[in-house]
Amino acid sequence: ETNFDLKEHPHSRLNILTGDWILVSPHRTKRPWQGKVEATQADDRPQYDPACYLCPTNKRADGSENPDYKGSFVFTNDYSSLLLNTPDGGLNEDELLVANSQKGICRVISFSPRHDLTLPQMTTEEIAKVVDVWQTEFQDLASYPWIKHIQIFENKGDIMGCSNPHPHGQIWAQNSLPVEVAKETQQQKLHFEQKGTSLLADYLALELKKQDRVVFENEHFAVLVPFWAVWPYETMIVSKRHVTSILYFTDEEKVALADAIRRLTIRYDNMFETSFPYSAGMHQSPVNSGDHPYWHWHMHFYPPLLRSATVKKFMVGYEMLANPQRDITAEFAAEKLRGLSEVHYKAR
Amino acid sequence: ETNFDLKEHPHSRLNILTGDWILVSPHRTKRPWQGKVEATQADDRPQYDPACYLCPTNKRADGSENPDYKGSFVFTNDYSSLLLNTPDGGLNEDELLVANSQKGICRVISFSPRHDLTLPQMTTEEIAKVVDVWQTEFQDLASYPWIKHIQIFENKGDIMGCSNPHPHGQIWAQNSLPVEVAKETQQQKLHFEQKGTSLLADYLALELKKQDRVVFENEHFAVLVPFWAVWPYETMIVSKRHVTSILYFTDEEKVALADAIRRLTIRYDNMFETSFPYSAGMHQSPVNSGDHPYWHWHMHFYPPLLRSATVKKFMVGYEMLANPQRDITAEFAAEKLRGLSEVHYKAR
Ligand SMILES: O=P(O)(O)O[C@H]1O[C@H](CO)[C@@H](O)[C@H](O)[C@H]1O
Ligand SMILES: O=P(O)(O)O[C@H]1O[C@H](CO)[C@@H](O)[C@H](O)[C@H]1O
Repeated sequence: ETNFDLKEHPHSRLNILTGDWILVSPHRTKRPWQGKVEATQADDRPQYDPACYLCPTNKRADGSENPDYKGSFVFTNDYSSLLLNTPDGGLNEDELLVANSQKGICRVISFSPRHDLTLPQMTTEEIAKVVDVWQTEFQDLASYPWIKHIQIFENKGDIMGCSNPHPHGQIWAQNSLPVEVAKETQQQKLHFEQKGTSLLADYLALELKKQDRVVFENEHFAVLVPFWAVWPYETMIVSKRHVTSILYFTDEEKVALADAIRRLTIRYDNMFETSFPYSAGMHQSPVNSGDHPYWHWHMHFYPPLLRSATVKKFMVGYEMLANPQRDITAEFAAEKLRGLSEVHYKAR
Repeated sequence: ETNFDLKEHPHSRLNILTGDWILVSPHRTKRPWQGKVEATQADDRPQYDPACYLCPTNKRADGSENPDYKGSFVFTNDYSSLLLNTPDGGLNEDELLVANSQKGICRVISFSPRHDLTLPQMTTEEIAKVVDVWQTEFQDLASYPWIKHIQIFENKGDIMGCSNPHPHGQIWAQNSLPVEVAKETQQQKLHFEQKGTSLLADYLALELKKQDRVVFENEHFAVLVPFWAVWPYETMIVSKRHVTSILYFTDEEKVALADAIRRLTIRYDNMFETSFPYSAGMHQSPVNSGDHPYWHWHMHFYPPLLRSATVKKFMVGYEMLANPQRDITAEFAAEKLRGLSEVHYKAR
């Protein structure tokens, strides 16, 4: 028999989606912080900013003018990291210098004409319209036969590299499978081949039974802190129905996803009464590359804050060279998130 | 025939050490930056700070008093993330919740009694003494038969999570192989089994022939921007002799390593005339786990700055969810680093 206790003792946990491990140091929360304190971002933006390239009717870098849009607005990123017209090609010198041409499309989605809002400040109906656009864009990008993967994501807050506070997200679609998605593909496939079930469906069933890491659920989605979370308040939205991509969500599911996003991001904002920064994005089946019945749609939220609105977790030396590491347990984070209100602190 | 050009077109590159890919967008340097601008850290520290827990004769969190040391000073981290007395144990529920107890030792190494210095401001002889300590510590930690891996690293600058500007590094030693080291072990082993040679020796020979990515070399070490670099000015120090760990460096090699570290970090500081932040650390053979003849000692430098002393590269949404991405090529970075002086800007 052993006294080993996940709540107390340093341990590693397996990320079943990627096959990677993470180091957890539950005892280390007592460490005093004398390091970097982030500036908080001003949070009193006007509804319309004449200098913003996302606001309706404004000029963009390519000289074009934004329409006077009402809901969402989608356009090709003016500084796309992937381009449509990249010539095919590659390099392989002795298997030491290996490169492949990458072709892709990068789009930007403004979530709202209102410069002053963020997702948690929008209504469920408004967010459901964003979900609609994600679905339409996914379908449209998948219609290019050479596109193999579509990454839908949002960087929120300047601490997460977001260069414009106007509520918006991005889509990078490309002709190959990114590293993280390749890992999740392999792990889900393995499980499916061995057990005939969806890895995430089995995992979700276990989590819903245990309730230790579940933050909340609605009819179609559960929000939980994954057992293997890396970022302090990392969460995952998992669809209760096993669907391979956003393409298959019904109208009812789309509204339920909007509800889950809204309630989760409100809890986040309420954590430190600040506009809570994060990078978030969906993982779903690759496209135009055969059937992937094992893929189970989900959405990750990676927020950097650890102790307060100004102190984040640094993924640096040990983490970059060796292994991701965290100081609080997933169970502690879930409990904290469960205890937060679903009424936005600014609306009280 | 193809017009594909690594200097111009978006492409992915293979990291032969890990097997991972990275996305390169050479055309994207023209993107204007309207996002987060970092505060520069004050750089006028006193030689001795009575409030610093690393300065000689000061008190530490555990109540003990630092000796009046002259060279380096090593002690157990007062807020260790790994502990000696963790009970053995683990968890495996349906292969969905998987965890293992982790046991380890975390040490801190003050590089100098002087609070105001950093590695690039120390002499080669002074840095060589730090290399000596790294070697001794490696040997000492490897004498615990249950320790399997020893991670020597430094976080420099508050932007890299360093909470005390007094020049210092860390060592985290533990009973298992961290993720990154496991990947490098596998890749080097595969190459060795297939070709009978060291992967890094073969790679280094090719780079020294080409000179496109070499920054400089001395008799025993080469400093280069790896073909698959992720961070804008990422570099790697590779030993010319194939040794598996720091244990085997001769006195002459230790001085040559100090010379390489000094010249590289001076170039870094001169880049933006600022104390250049980075996380750096060695990768070397696991210990107490049989022979690893394929392991080839090297040291990575991961600096975050991209455009100036205040604008860094953000590894966020796409990078976290999909794939690391960079905006300048490794060749461009190497050329820039090659052009910099080896006289520190503060000493001119
Ligand atoms: O131990 P320190 O220097 O206080 O902490 C720093 O380095 C550690 C190892 O890379 C990280 O886990 C911490 O997030 C970082 O702030
Ligand atoms: O495209 P943006 O929003 O200007 O840029 C932001 O997101 C990108 C995708 O995650 C990152 O590559 C950039 O480093 C970040 O600043």
